[in-house]
Amino acid sequence: MIFETIESKGLAHFSYLVGSEGEAFVIDPRRDVQIYLDLAMEHGLKITHIFETHRNEDYVVGSMELSALTGATIHISGHEDLGYVYGEKISDGEVFQIGELSLKALHTPGHTLGHLCYALYEKDQEAPYLVFTGDTLFMGDLGRTDFYGEENLDKMTGLLYDSVVNKLLPLGDHVLLFPAHGAGSACGESMDDRPFSTLGYERLTNEHLQAASKEAFIESFARMRIKPRYFERMEELNVKGAPFIGDTASVPAIKADDLKDDQVLLDVRSKEAFMGGHIEGSYFLSPANLSTFLGTLFDEKTRFVLVTDEPDPAFLLEIRSQMLRIGFDCLDGYLEGGVNSLLEAEKSPLSLPTIRGEALRELAGEFLVLDIRDNEPVPDWLEAKTVRIPLQMLYKRYAELDPERDIYVLCASGNRSTTAASFLLNHGYRPAVILGGIHTI
Amino acid sequence: MIFETIESKGLAHFSYLVGSEGEAFVIDPRRDVQIYLDLAMEHGLKITHIFETHRNEDYVVGSMELSALTGATIHISGHEDLGYVYGEKISDGEVFQIGELSLKALHTPGHTLGHLCYALYEKDQEAPYLVFTGDTLFMGDLGRTDFYGEENLDKMTGLLYDSVVNKLLPLGDHVLLFPAHGAGSACGESMDDRPFSTLGYERLTNEHLQAASKEAFIESFARMRIKPRYFERMEELNVKGAPFIGDTASVPAIKADDLKDDQVLLDVRSKEAFMGGHIEGSYFLSPANLSTFLGTLFDEKTRFVLVTDEPDPAFLLEIRSQMLRIGFDCLDGYLEGGVNSLLEAEKSPLSLPTIRGEALRELAGEFLVLDIRDNEPVPDWLEAKTVRIPLQMLYKRYAELDPERDIYVLCASGNRSTTAASFLLNHGYRPAVILGGIHTI
Amino acid sequence: MIFETIESKGLAHFSYLVGSEGEAFVIDPRRDVQIYLDLAMEHGLKITHIFETHRNEDYVVGSMELSALTGATIHISGHEDLGYVYGEKISDGEVFQIGELSLKALHTPGHTLGHLCYALYEKDQEAPYLVFTGDTLFMGDLGRTDFYGEENLDKMTGLLYDSVVNKLLPLGDHVLLFPAHGAGSACGESMDDRPFSTLGYERLTNEHLQAASKEAFIESFARMRIKPRYFERMEELNVKGAPFIGDTASVPAIKADDLKDDQVLLDVRSKEAFMGGHIEGSYFLSPANLSTFLGTLFDEKTRFVLVTDEPDPAFLLEIRSQMLRIGFDCLDGYLEGGVNSLLEAEKSPLSLPTIRGEALRELAGEFLVLDIRDNEPVPDWLEAKTVRIPLQMLYKRYAELDPERDIYVLCASGNRSTTAASFLLNHGYRPAVILGGIHTI
Amino acid sequence: MIFETIESKGLAHFSYLVGSEGEAFVIDPRRDVQIYLDLAMEHGLKITHIFETHRNEDYVVGSMELSALTGATIHISGHEDLGYVYGEKISDGEVFQIGELSLKALHTPGHTLGHLCYALYEKDQEAPYLVFTGDTLFMGDLGRTDFYGEENLDKMTGLLYDSVVNKLLPLGDHVLLFPAHGAGSACGESMDDRPFSTLGYERLTNEHLQAASKEAFIESFARMRIKPRYFERMEELNVKGAPFIGDTASVPAIKADDLKDDQVLLDVRSKEAFMGGHIEGSYFLSPANLSTFLGTLFDEKTRFVLVTDEPDPAFLLEIRSQMLRIGFDCLDGYLEGGVNSLLEAEKSPLSLPTIRGEALRELAGEFLVLDIRDNEPVPDWLEAKTVRIPLQMLYKRYAELDPERDIYVLCASGNRSTTAASFLLNHGYRPAVILGGIHTI
Repeated sequence: MIFETIESKGLAHFSYLVGSEGEAFVIDPRRDVQIYLDLAMEHGLKITHIFETHRNEDYVVGSMELSALTGATIHISGHEDLGYVYGEKISDGEVFQIGELSLKALHTPGHTLGHLCYALYEKDQEAPYLVFTGDTLFMGDLGRTDFYGEENLDKMTGLLYDSVVNKLLPLGDHVLLFPAHGAGSACGESMDDRPFSTLGYERLTNEHLQAASKEAFIESFARMRIKPRYFERMEELNVKGAPFIGDTASVPAIKADDLKDDQVLLDVRSKEAFMGGHIEGSYFLSPANLSTFLGTLFDEKTRFVLVTDEPDPAFLLEIRSQMLRIGFDCLDGYLEGGVNSLLEAEKSPLSLPTIRGEALRELAGEFLVLDIRDNEPVPDWLEAKTVRIPLQMLYKRYAELDPERDIYVLCASGNRSTTAASFLLNHGYRPAVILGGIHTI
Repeated sequence: MIFETIESKGLAHFSYLVGSEGEAFVIDPRRDVQIYLDLAMEHGLKITHIFETHRNEDYVVGSMELSALTGATIHISGHEDLGYVYGEKISDGEVFQIGELSLKALHTPGHTLGHLCYALYEKDQEAPYLVFTGDTLFMGDLGRTDFYGEENLDKMTGLLYDSVVNKLLPLGDHVLLFPAHGAGSACGESMDDRPFSTLGYERLTNEHLQAASKEAFIESFARMRIKPRYFERMEELNVKGAPFIGDTASVPAIKADDLKDDQVLLDVRSKEAFMGGHIEGSYFLSPANLSTFLGTLFDEKTRFVLVTDEPDPAFLLEIRSQMLRIGFDCLDGYLEGGVNSLLEAEKSPLSLPTIRGEALRELAGEFLVLDIRDNEPVPDWLEAKTVRIPLQMLYKRYAELDPERDIYVLCASGNRSTTAASFLLNHGYRPAVILGGIHTI
Repeated sequence: MIFETIESKGLAHFSYLVGSEGEAFVIDPRRDVQIYLDLAMEHGLKITHIFETHRNEDYVVGSMELSALTGATIHISGHEDLGYVYGEKISDGEVFQIGELSLKALHTPGHTLGHLCYALYEKDQEAPYLVFTGDTLFMGDLGRTDFYGEENLDKMTGLLYDSVVNKLLPLGDHVLLFPAHGAGSACGESMDDRPFSTLGYERLTNEHLQAASKEAFIESFARMRIKPRYFERMEELNVKGAPFIGDTASVPAIKADDLKDDQVLLDVRSKEAFMGGHIEGSYFLSPANLSTFLGTLFDEKTRFVLVTDEPDPAFLLEIRSQMLRIGFDCLDGYLEGGVNSLLEAEKSPLSLPTIRGEALRELAGEFLVLDIRDNEPVPDWLEAKTVRIPLQMLYKRYAELDPERDIYVLCASGNRSTTAASFLLNHGYRPAVILGGIHTI
Repeated sequence: MIFETIESKGLAHFSYLVGSEGEAFVIDPRRDVQIYLDLAMEHGLKITHIFETHRNEDYVVGSMELSALTGATIHISGHEDLGYVYGEKISDGEVFQIGELSLKALHTPGHTLGHLCYALYEKDQEAPYLVFTGDTLFMGDLGRTDFYGEENLDKMTGLLYDSVVNKLLPLGDHVLLFPAHGAGSACGESMDDRPFSTLGYERLTNEHLQAASKEAFIESFARMRIKPRYFERMEELNVKGAPFIGDTASVPAIKADDLKDDQVLLDVRSKEAFMGGHIEGSYFLSPANLSTFLGTLFDEKTRFVLVTDEPDPAFLLEIRSQMLRIGFDCLDGYLEGGVNSLLEAEKSPLSLPTIRGEALRELAGEFLVLDIRDNEPVPDWLEAKTVRIPLQMLYKRYAELDPERDIYVLCASGNRSTTAASFLLNHGYRPAVILGGIHTI
């Protein structure tokens, strides 16, 4: 058996390619599909089937493009009518043969109504070998249940409980577990960073599975969460099908003189480099979470030009892929000469003010701390001076801030607060970043 | 200055990417253009100009596809009207600025009527730095002059003499020389395998430039040569533009059971492996000269399936590229399991008979030696038994052979004779290969 | 948690690097240790601990060299006194902290007396997460128990039963399992080709764990097996420590003229290529099982020169590594020009006779079939004509064969029989290979 | 002919590997010699000869290590007695055969007394093909002539004139030229950034070759230049032989807690990142010129730990190589967590003050500009406030600066001034960097 996990960094998304006897299937392919073609070639396989666990909301699925390139059939859930224009609808209990392997669909509603998990069986074995759990059961976490609105929250959460506790876990403690996301994804909150897991290990250690009853579970788990701005567009693209991207890829150099007014400079260097010197009007985004926040702060029609240190091709193409995966097909190139390219036009880089935590403690005056984390507490002494706007909501709510006040932006490590500070700089504020984040306060 | 030579193996074709101050031009791009995008990214360049030296006859040019991907302008010769549907026509003496470099077009007829060379100048220098010579002046050789028919042979050869001796050489001994082909190309016969050359070094050492006069040159150089079957289609594609290929590339596994009747098995292993065991009905082609002979033995609409040892992806994609470069867009995949894939269907591989040269000498009977080399002599004692059909012509002339006679196929090393033997096997003959070729006779 | 499986092809050996919080440990490192340094760098780790499961007999362990390069401590079993000159002895139940992980040693005799497994625990968890099982429990198989001789066979087999059934399985069905070998290893006979497994999945599906009782298990499992010739040298090297190899690696070209009398030509092309043409005196070995059979047919002091097709550096270095891993530090280079390099010296390649299975059936006369497989049956009609000598034993027993008889060599697919045929050719016999092996008879 | 140019970044050093008929020679190998072994394998060559042009002063030569690994003979100049402990001494006019090529030694004193150039001839050709010019003739420049002291300056400069004008140029305009250094090297001042050159092109365009006479040349070229601190040690190592480095390479993670007092933190991020936040006590060095300035600011016995952004292995190993090439065998690892690794110890990063050029113009007060460029002018209005100490001399002369004054450090682009500022910070000064260097003043 060939088994390959394909991780899409930035989204913490996992897709899978599994092969046997020259044939292969793919679970939840991402939009840049060359990786599946490459792996199929490496292992001498022909991709014959594509399976989706559910209509994804956090990335653009690549089923149609991969199918067009390989002739593979696409299989989607028949348990919920979402207006799909592609794919064959399949139901609970259906079984597919790929080489010597059998794959059985399991209807597991909760995250979505139609959600399917897939259990894999080896030849002639009754015991299931592994299960692809999509956004149902993660390592150390479960899929969110708030996509159908507050009015359906308890119902969906109850469905999830049944799916996990009464349908997945009974497959057996020994069954290996392969979810659609890992630590860092916006689809869960407290995923563990483990390379593998089993149903039994989750049963024993997953905090949410320790609830005494279904009611207790709903009580503790049902909760509305932040939904990033771009999720709705993903939901739409993923039933209609996204434009094909092909793979003739380039991120060309753009000279400073050729920059256009409608191009946004996206600075993807380190936060320290942005602090030390950045181009006026540019935005900072860390490559580590670019997919998540780009789709939150910008519209997908925005045209972007990157600001980098050395323009390493692999890095530029990775950024391009991260953008394509969330439907941002709008990277024009990178700025030749980087942050110093405007020197000849007499525009030196600007620095971004910072403050160390201990200095903040001693600071007098009417300053304001903007906490752009999702939900975490600040020390008591800061409470009164703190305004909370999660970074995901900043594009909507920044006007709540008083532009006359000194604003110190706070997050865990400084990455997100540098993004927020660059956003505020470009919207008329004078922010400073709290160096090292909450650790130093 | 950035200077990159891109060699297309199998065709011994050179294209060039040259950059300065963030801009770049490409000379004679090949059809699989991702390499130019990759190099431009690596060096931080934007490709702004594409120059063709002449309408090529031995490969599909990639100007239109590269232009579509980069926005670069295409420049072709205005000195001959070939019906081009793309490109801006330029004339002798026109100069282009790319970054700090200047490129000057030089009309140099001979190989074709419209042929252009391009001389490159560094900033503020009067002395030319290097010259791109296309199919005019090679290392140790000159471009062939027989494409306009026997009736124009002397005229074209005279034009070539003037272009080289009276136009290129006067640029100066110090000028570096970058031709469109190197040793192994079908566009010349005796090219030297040198990494670089200069006009002066060619003046001193190139055999053809030692002629005492123009007349002596015509006398010795003017000659009709073999024109591979696929050249005409190239000439057509290269003025109309070939279909775009993109670069989402895969060569999938194909199971023996799924082979179709109209698919030709192309065995690209070593000749020894083909001799030791091959599938009935398959053809042998060495990857080292695949582009040249595939376009000679087959029609471009033929569908192919490769037979390989281990299916290494890089190797499979390279074979695919070599086929695309001559307009063969018809590789369906490779045979899973290779030469032994039909064992379960009770079809063992066949071996191909061979004979050592010394054994041939002692052989009695009415055998026949088929010499498939272009032009070289055989030992006297073999003369009477030898039939000469160059491999390039075999598809047209094989019926001249007597199927009742034992046929021993001869070439220099055994590669071409194994190709010829596989062709004959599939056309009702019983050939054997002379091991080690002419060396052992 | 960082988890990397390092597979050594040719031996089907797995070693593991596991990291947490900047620290890492390695289980059973192989001799060419650069891969561990590379992985540690890639993940930002410092290797601090090395653990051996047992004194290995089938490859050279790299503990000492890895320790010298990283400063990591080496831990070996204290339950058996083998004369180790390195390492700290540890005992059942000892626990080590690496980052946030705990690793607990479990004494599991059976394969060897001192064998240790290692259970891994995540931070603050009582349930074990995974277990490294060394040569105790494989996927679908168990470790062999015959290394202490026939007189101890039942005792060792009983110990293995207790270790697996009473010590490993009780860790829980949910526990992931990472053994030292996979399908293809000489350390087991019927391993499954699965990417992962769990104790529960083995409990349910591993054939050997279905025995009704310890007695029944001993009855069915206890058996003496073939021990490759080189195992004894490995056992010696692995307590004394092997010479360090460093990693400045090269396999230089050697001209045919420079070959020396004491150099053995090792042909590592495909079996078909060897059949089609090979150099007199050369031996065929498939890269797929080179480690296993090289150590069987040759002495470790033999000097080798490879015969290949194109001399791809990655391939040459991989062959070199496979040799080093079994203590063969004696690869002088590869033959420039390959199988045709002796043509100028008037030595054409030789072909190796083959016969198809169906032809064998019709063959008259006093021929002999040499079955070099380990243990499998032949059809009844062949029984009387068949001599069985496993390839592993051929070096000792070939003289049993009658050099006057026609010998047809039989194996499963033809790889091993081509090796055997080349061996016999070099020892005065005239063998032919049965094409496609047992499948076509 | 195989021809490979090996560029060592950071030193702008070129070495060459040239092969023919399975044999190869190397000109001036660098210390990390794996690249030559790799190239030889890739092209199927055995390295048989190593040639040195002169006793190098700017890097550690790898002749002995390469010879030990390949058995190649080493050839050094017999025209100057420097106390070499290795190599065969050769003289003007000696010729060596490698495959079908001939290499002729040419005694060309000037840069050193014993300097050799090497002219390469193709088979049966009287005209030289190319010449390796070492540190004699560069593209657009000539080798410095001041290593034998001011008293010998004119004599050495005259020798250089004779070597170039009367010995090299007469080889012919057509001869290709391959020097030991390119643009950016400390061995010349005004090298052009050209990929190739010829003797004729240099004759026509090289500024120094336009001198009307030998006297005029001496007049304009003879000059004492800065000699980096580490050159003397190189000269010593290069006659005695440096310790072998092998190639089992790792740059391990080091935890902040494990840092030792004698380890110097070397920050190799961008200058903007250093400005935005750096660890107290760390030094900034740009990877682009690390070899040059590391050997100037530090002693070779200093132990270093790198501060980077993402610890990319290829980058870390490249830094390690750059250090080894100048005899700094003392890289202990890199700091895990980078610039923020000390946050938990409550040490936030520090920022480095900067000033824009236009702000400087308006600045009042008794400030001081430290110009650390080699030789270039400042605007008149700044003249009085400027102190000139080339960065190469700062380690010796920094005490000339007044620690009470505000110091603004100036260079061309900001890289060198950030290095200087970090040096001054660690020696009791409070410098600021002039952003964008001389461009904005």
